[in-house]
Amino acid sequence: MTSNVKTPPSDIQDEPKGEINLGILDEIIGFRIRRIQNHLSRSFTALLNQDDLRPGVFSSLALVAANPGLSQKTLAREVGFDKATIVAVLDNMEAKGWTRRQRSTTDRRRHLLFVTPKGQEALDQMAILVRRNEAKAHASLSAEEQDVLLRLLDKVYKSCFVDVSE
Amino acid sequence: MTSNVKTPPSDIQDEPKGEINLGILDEIIGFRIRRIQNHLSRSFTALLNQDDLRPGVFSSLALVAANPGLSQKTLAREVGFDKATIVAVLDNMEAKGWTRRQRSTTDRRRHLLFVTPKGQEALDQMAILVRRNEAKAHASLSAEEQDVLLRLLDKVYKSCFVDVSE
Repeated sequence: MTSNVKTPPSDIQDEPKGEINLGILDEIIGFRIRRIQNHLSRSFTALLNQDDLRPGVFSSLALVAANPGLSQKTLAREVGFDKATIVAVLDNMEAKGWTRRQRSTTDRRRHLLFVTPKGQEALDQMAILVRRNEAKAHASLSAEEQDVLLRLLDKVYKSCFVDVSE
Repeated sequence: MTSNVKTPPSDIQDEPKGEINLGILDEIIGFRIRRIQNHLSRSFTALLNQDDLRPGVFSSLALVAANPGLSQKTLAREVGFDKATIVAVLDNMEAKGWTRRQRSTTDRRRHLLFVTPKGQEALDQMAILVRRNEAKAHASLSAEEQDVLLRLLDKVYKSCFVDVSE
């Protein structure tokens, strides 16, 4: 596993995987999740092989599919996007004919979102790739560990909104 | 929670926080971590208030500080960056006088990385902001939950490399 490229014993070796010193990062949750996301999103992009899809399209499409009539604002909050990003993602999905935006009849400032049949089909296909992309991650955890992980991540996510709510 | 569009007075209200249906995302680890990262990185960028810093600089600087002489390749692996990204991050840090790259005397293809005193000072200041940025997340977990979360995230991260190593 380690690489011994032309190196006499005293030179610095490639550090063993996952065994370098994390230093002050050791307790930084953001670091632990960021590096996983960097890997997963890169490998997903490679699997997906569609240059015209913005990151976040899969998650957004899935949430709208699961919550027909979802508001743009709630969607943004649930995927963690700011307004500019969610608008760009929605434009991207709409351009592909996957979702449609509809103004609420009772509050014209609100956009309600719906997935089209074409969007549902695209979602089903992407879901296969997402599961394939995460197969190794899931295999590395027992069912109980996976439950615990998701529950703890949800606690952390909810904490993002403490003191920020209206 | 179900959608009854165009039907006053049962028009869709803003969905309660964290209580929308996650649909097929329910078991997607990448979704759970991505939305946390979106929030944390946006609030960190706001706290940091330095437009000339690339995302990833803090983590990279911290890892080099904790592992003097770290190779560029190992750093890229530990933060989850591809080669182009790590080179851009290193250029950014070097331009600010925070790190220096040195070719290995025994293997000229390897770059060994070191933090300068100025870089250490910048790191110390950023670390304060990172901890402040994560304070709510940490407060939401017991000490035991935090340990479990980090351990499980590390298992997932290591799984990213299964079958990909040389």
